[in-house]
Amino acid sequence: MRIMVINPNTSVTMTDHVRHALSKIKSQDTELTVVCPEYGPITIETAYDEAWATVNMLELVKQANEEGYDAILIACFADPGLTAAREVSRIPVIGIAEATMHMACMLGDKFTLVAPRKERVPSKYEHVARVGVESKLASVRSLNMTVAQTESEPELTKKRAFEVAQQAVEEDGAEVIILGCAGMAGYAEEIERKLGVVVLDPSAVGLKVAEAMASLGLRHSKRALYSTPPEKEFKRKI
Amino acid sequence: MRIMVINPNTSVTMTDHVRHALSKIKSQDTELTVVCPEYGPITIETAYDEAWATVNMLELVKQANEEGYDAILIACFADPGLTAAREVSRIPVIGIAEATMHMACMLGDKFTLVAPRKERVPSKYEHVARVGVESKLASVRSLNMTVAQTESEPELTKKRAFEVAQQAVEEDGAEVIILGCAGMAGYAEEIERKLGVVVLDPSAVGLKVAEAMASLGLRHSKRALYSTPPEKEFKRKI
Amino acid sequence: MRIMVINPNTSVTMTDHVRHALSKIKSQDTELTVVCPEYGPITIETAYDEAWATVNMLELVKQANEEGYDAILIACFADPGLTAAREVSRIPVIGIAEATMHMACMLGDKFTLVAPRKERVPSKYEHVARVGVESKLASVRSLNMTVAQTESEPELTKKRAFEVAQQAVEEDGAEVIILGCAGMAGYAEEIERKLGVVVLDPSAVGLKVAEAMASLGLRHSKRALYSTPPEKEFKRKI
Amino acid sequence: MRIMVINPNTSVTMTDHVRHALSKIKSQDTELTVVCPEYGPITIETAYDEAWATVNMLELVKQANEEGYDAILIACFADPGLTAAREVSRIPVIGIAEATMHMACMLGDKFTLVAPRKERVPSKYEHVARVGVESKLASVRSLNMTVAQTESEPELTKKRAFEVAQQAVEEDGAEVIILGCAGMAGYAEEIERKLGVVVLDPSAVGLKVAEAMASLGLRHSKRALYSTPPEKEFKRKI
Amino acid sequence: MRIMVINPNTSVTMTDHVRHALSKIKSQDTELTVVCPEYGPITIETAYDEAWATVNMLELVKQANEEGYDAILIACFADPGLTAAREVSRIPVIGIAEATMHMACMLGDKFTLVAPRKERVPSKYEHVARVGVESKLASVRSLNMTVAQTESEPELTKKRAFEVAQQAVEEDGAEVIILGCAGMAGYAEEIERKLGVVVLDPSAVGLKVAEAMASLGLRHSKRALYSTPPEKEFKRKI
Amino acid sequence: MRIMVINPNTSVTMTDHVRHALSKIKSQDTELTVVCPEYGPITIETAYDEAWATVNMLELVKQANEEGYDAILIACFADPGLTAAREVSRIPVIGIAEATMHMACMLGDKFTLVAPRKERVPSKYEHVARVGVESKLASVRSLNMTVAQTESEPELTKKRAFEVAQQAVEEDGAEVIILGCAGMAGYAEEIERKLGVVVLDPSAVGLKVAEAMASLGLRHSKRALYSTPPEKEFKRKI
Repeated sequence: MRIMVINPNTSVTMTDHVRHALSKIKSQDTELTVVCPEYGPITIETAYDEAWATVNMLELVKQANEEGYDAILIACFADPGLTAAREVSRIPVIGIAEATMHMACMLGDKFTLVAPRKERVPSKYEHVARVGVESKLASVRSLNMTVAQTESEPELTKKRAFEVAQQAVEEDGAEVIILGCAGMAGYAEEIERKLGVVVLDPSAVGLKVAEAMASLGLRHSKRALYSTPPEKEFKRKI
Repeated sequence: MRIMVINPNTSVTMTDHVRHALSKIKSQDTELTVVCPEYGPITIETAYDEAWATVNMLELVKQANEEGYDAILIACFADPGLTAAREVSRIPVIGIAEATMHMACMLGDKFTLVAPRKERVPSKYEHVARVGVESKLASVRSLNMTVAQTESEPELTKKRAFEVAQQAVEEDGAEVIILGCAGMAGYAEEIERKLGVVVLDPSAVGLKVAEAMASLGLRHSKRALYSTPPEKEFKRKI
Repeated sequence: MRIMVINPNTSVTMTDHVRHALSKIKSQDTELTVVCPEYGPITIETAYDEAWATVNMLELVKQANEEGYDAILIACFADPGLTAAREVSRIPVIGIAEATMHMACMLGDKFTLVAPRKERVPSKYEHVARVGVESKLASVRSLNMTVAQTESEPELTKKRAFEVAQQAVEEDGAEVIILGCAGMAGYAEEIERKLGVVVLDPSAVGLKVAEAMASLGLRHSKRALYSTPPEKEFKRKI
Repeated sequence: MRIMVINPNTSVTMTDHVRHALSKIKSQDTELTVVCPEYGPITIETAYDEAWATVNMLELVKQANEEGYDAILIACFADPGLTAAREVSRIPVIGIAEATMHMACMLGDKFTLVAPRKERVPSKYEHVARVGVESKLASVRSLNMTVAQTESEPELTKKRAFEVAQQAVEEDGAEVIILGCAGMAGYAEEIERKLGVVVLDPSAVGLKVAEAMASLGLRHSKRALYSTPPEKEFKRKI
Repeated sequence: MRIMVINPNTSVTMTDHVRHALSKIKSQDTELTVVCPEYGPITIETAYDEAWATVNMLELVKQANEEGYDAILIACFADPGLTAAREVSRIPVIGIAEATMHMACMLGDKFTLVAPRKERVPSKYEHVARVGVESKLASVRSLNMTVAQTESEPELTKKRAFEVAQQAVEEDGAEVIILGCAGMAGYAEEIERKLGVVVLDPSAVGLKVAEAMASLGLRHSKRALYSTPPEKEFKRKI
Repeated sequence: MRIMVINPNTSVTMTDHVRHALSKIKSQDTELTVVCPEYGPITIETAYDEAWATVNMLELVKQANEEGYDAILIACFADPGLTAAREVSRIPVIGIAEATMHMACMLGDKFTLVAPRKERVPSKYEHVARVGVESKLASVRSLNMTVAQTESEPELTKKRAFEVAQQAVEEDGAEVIILGCAGMAGYAEEIERKLGVVVLDPSAVGLKVAEAMASLGLRHSKRALYSTPPEKEFKRKI
C-alpha cells in the first residue's frame, strides 16, 4: 500500500527526520512518500500557524487523492486541518494526535499529553475534547519551552521531558505518556523504563493506524461531517 | 467607538446587506466599517471554506488593530478563525455565533440552532461544545438547503425556517431559536410571533455584545489561549 | 431606556455604593433607579439569606414591571431568585453573576470565581453548573473572610484578593478572574495589571448586558422555564 | 424515633392525606408529626411558589430542631428550600424527590420523572442535575395538567399518568417511573402491573430513607454547603 | 424480614466480623443470615479476584431466592457481580458501595472514597461513574496498603486513614468520607469527631437501605438491565 | 507475530467461523491461534453469561502468556473480563468492541452500535461509557432478536439489520455502524452500499489493531488499573 505522510510545516529538516524514523518501522509492503508544503510556517505552535499550514497542506491532500495513494498521515501533533482534509479526500486521512490518543486509551487508565509551549495547554485540552476521549485524560503538561528550543537545547528538553512525565505519573495518575512534539521523540524509551509507564511516539502509532485502516479498505463516511464540499466560486490570489 | 465588522466570505452583496442591517441598530456613538476579504470562498459551508476564509480574514484583523479600531465583529455564523484572530489582535474580536449562544442562555431554558445545510449539523454540535454551552442546547436542526438556495428561494426558505423552528419548539423543547444564516434573518419576527418563543438574529446580538465589550474597555486575556504568536520564519507565496 | 437595579440585601450603604459606581459607566441614554428591599438580610451569604432576600426582592421586580422599566439588574453575585423573578416579569431580568460568567467565556480560556466565604465554595460550583458554563471554569477560590470582614478590613481583603487571584492563575490556569463580591471591586485594576489577566467587575458587566438586551428589545421566553405563574390561593401574613 | 413531616404548601387537605398515607407504612417505633405552614401558596408549581413556601417552611424546620425531633421529611416533590433547611438544622432533612431519585438508581437502568405541568419540565431536568444523577435519567414527561386539575379530574389524571408512563417505557427506555405529584399516587400499582416496571411513590420512599438515616444517627456535614448561617442583622416585617 | 448478607470473599473471619457488626444495628424485626462462598479468593483487590468471587457468589444469590429471603446485601465494597446478581434474583440485591454513595450524596456537598490499595484507585473512579454520582465525588484516595496489611497492622491503618481523610477534607473539599474497606471500619468515629465531617460505614448503611427496600416491597425492574437470563446450554466442570 | 484469538463462549462452530474469517485478512507474517474455553455458556448475552465466560477465558489468557504469544484478541463484542485479562497478561489484550469503537471515532461524526437483544441495550450504553467515547455515540439499537435467532433465522436477521441501520442513519445521525454480533457480519457490505455509511466488522478491526499494537511492541501500563494481582490464598474447587 502507498501512504503519503505530510509534515504540514515547511521545515525540510523535520520532514527528513520523519521520513527517516517512519521508514524503519513501516510494514514491508508499505511504500511511504514523506512531504511538506512549499509555503507556510516553519513550525506550528499557534492557531495562526495552524491556519496557514492548513491551506497549504490541503493541496497535498488533493494531490495524494489524484495520485492514487491508499492513505494520508498528517505528521503534526496539532492535527491541523484534519476535518477539511477529510472533506476533500476519498482516502483515509489519519492525524497522529487523534490516532495516538485512541491507542493510549487501550493501554492504561489515563494518559498525559506533554506539549512544548505553556501557552498551548488550553488548546490541547480543547483538542482532546474534540477527539472525544476527555474521560481518559490525566492532564496536559508543558515543557515550558518553544519548539525551536526543543531543537536547539536537547539536554534541557530531555531533562524537562523526564520531570514533566514524572509529575504526570505521580501527581495526575497518568499511566500512559504521549510526547506531543517531534523534539522529544528520542527520550521515550528512557522515560518508559525509569517511570514504569507506557510512552507513545505519535508518528509511529499514527503510521500503524494508517496501515491498519488502509489494509481494511476503510474510508471516512461522507454523509455529513466529512461530506465532499459543493463546488462554488472562490476568489483566489493568482 | 469604532467597530470593524468583517464578513469573512467574499460576497460583496452580503457585505452590503450586513452593513445596511447593522447601521440601523448600532448605538449612536458607534462608527461601523463593514468589509470582506478580497480572496476566498463566496459562501462558508464547509471546513474547507472556513480554512480559506480564515487566512484571508486574518489580514483584516491585523489591519483593524493597526488602524485603531475598538473592536472587531466576525459576521459569519461559523465564527471562522476566531482563536487565530484573537491571537493576533489586541482589541476584542467577537464571533456572532458565540456571542448569540451566550445571550440565548439568559433568555430561556434551551436554544436550537437552525443551520442551512444538513451536512453541517455535526459541526454545529461541535461548535456549541467548543463555546461551552452544550447543556443549554435543545438541538441543531437544518433547513436541508444550501446557502445559495436560501438566497435564491426565499419562499421555500421562509416555509422551511418556520417548520424547523416549530419542530424545535414542539419536539426538542426549544425556548429560544437562533437563525444561523443571514438568509433567514428576515423571518425572525414572524416565527417569534407565531410560536411564542424568542428568535435571535446573530449579527444584531453580536454587534451589541461588541459595543458592550468595547465600552467596558475589555480585552482578551493574553496569558495562553489567545497569547500573541511568537515571530517565526514563514515561507509565503508572493 | 430605564433600568431598575435591585440590590437584594437591605444595606442602604451598599445600595448607595452600587448607584454611585454604575452611574459613572451607564450609557448616556440610560436612566438608572437603584433600590433595595425594605426587609430581609443585611448581606447574602447563605441559602437561608437568599431565601429571605428573594421574597422581598420579588415585590420590587413586580413594581419595575408596573412602572414601565425596560430591564432589571439584580446586583448581587448570588443571583438570588433569578428564575422566580423572570417568571413574574415581562421585561428582561439580568443577574450580574450569570451575565459576567457568559462574558468571561469570550475573553480567555477559563475563569476563576473569587468568593468571600470559604463555606460558599460548593454553592458557587453549583451556580456555575446551573449557568451552564462549567467547562470554562478554572476554579472557585475564597478569601476565607466573611462579607462583613471584606468591608471592615480593606487592607486584608486587598492582600487576600491578590493572593487568591495569583493562585488561580498559576495553579488553576485561570485567564479571567471574576471578583464575586462588592467588597473586592476596587482592587480589580491592580490585579489585572500585576497578573496580566482580565479581571471582571460583575456589576459593570451586568449593566452593559442589561443595556444590550434592552436596546435589542429582548424578552425572556415565556414557554416553560420562565412562564407566568398561574393565579392561585396564597395565605399571607397581613 | 420522632420524624416531623412538613408539607410545604398550605393545603390542610393534602397535609391530612400525607399523614394518613405515611401512618400506614411507618416503622412501628416511628412517631410522625405531619404539618404545613400557616402562610404561603396552596400548591407549589413555580419558582415563585417555591420562594414563598421556603421562607414559611424554614420556621417549621427550626421548630423541629428545638423540639428534639430526629429527622425532618419535606413532603413536596420540588424539594423546596432543601439547602437552606439543612443549613439551619442539626438533624437530617430529607427531600422526597432527592431520596426517591437515589433509590430509583438502584432499581433499574434509568428512571423517568412524571410531572403535572408541562411548563415545569425544564426545572425538573435542573433538579435532577442538582441531585447529581443525570446519567440515570431516561426523561422528564408531563401530564400537561395543573396540580389543581390532578385533584379535580382523577379519571383524566389516571389516564394521562398511564399514557405518559407507557411512552417513558417504550420511547425513552425507562425502567423505573417516579410519580412526581401527590395527585398521581393512587395509580402506581396499576401502572406497575400493566407495564412491568417499578413505580415509586416519593413520600413513602422518603419516609423510609428518613428512618434509615435517623436509625444510623446520621447528620449533614456542617463543613461548607450546609454550614450553620452566621448571625446577622435581619430587617423583618413584624 | 429475612436478609441474606453475602461476604463474597472466602474469609470466615471477616464473615464473622460482618455478622457481629450488623447484628448490633439491624432492626428488631430483621433476621440476618451472614454467609460467604466456599470457593474463591480470600480477599478482593483486583478485577481478577472479582471475577472469581462473582461466580461463586451467584450460587448464594440463587439460594437466597429459593429460600424465600426478602433482600440480599453484598458486603464487599467492590460490589462484585452486582448486575449479574440482580439478573438472577427476584428479590432486591443491595451493594454496600452503591447504597453508601447514594446516601453520601444527601449528607454533604461531595464525598471521598478511601481505598486500601493505590493500584485500585482507577477502578474506584470507574465504579463511581457506573453508579452515576460522579458529580458528587471529591476524590478517591488510598492508604497505599494491601487489604492484608490493613488487618495485620491496625496502628498504621488507623494513622493512614486519618491522614488520608484529612487530605480529602483539606485539599479535595470532601464533606463526607466513605471508608471503603472493612479494615478501617473501627476508626470512623474518631475521624468524624476530629475532622468535623461525616464518615460512613458502608456495611451499616447498606443494611439500612436493604431494610428500607424490603419494607417498601421494592424489586428491581426486569425490563432490560436486570432481565432474567434466558435458558441456554452451559458447559460446566462437574 | 503470533496472536491468540479467544472466542470466550464455548461454541466450537462460532470459533471455527472466527478462525476462517480472520485467516483471510490477517497480515502475511501473522500466525493465528483461534480457541475457545472448554467450560462456560454457549453464547454471551447477559452479565451472568459474562461472569462465567470470564473465569474460563482467564486461563487461556495465562496460557497465551506462558506460550510466548505477542498479543491476545478477545473475539466477543461484550469484551468480557477485559480488565482482569490485562491484569494477568504481560502481552497486549485487545477487546474487539473497544478497538472498533476507537476506530469508528476516526471515520465519521458519530457511530451506532447494533446489538441483537433489546434487553442488552442499557449494558451497551454502559460499555461505551466505560470505553470513554460517549460523545461519539449516536445510539445503541437492537434487532430485538436473541443471539440464537440471529443464527437460525438469517433472512430475518438481514432484514432487521438493514432496518435498524437505516433508522440509526436517518433518525440518530449515525455515520458509522458497528454490527455488534457475529451473526450480522455477512450483511455489512450491502448496508454500507445502500445507506452510504461506513459499516465496521469488529473482529476484523480488532485483529488489525492487535497487529498494530504487537508490531509497535506496546504493552499495557502496569502501574495501577492493569497491575499484576498480588499472590493470595484462593479456595478452589478441584
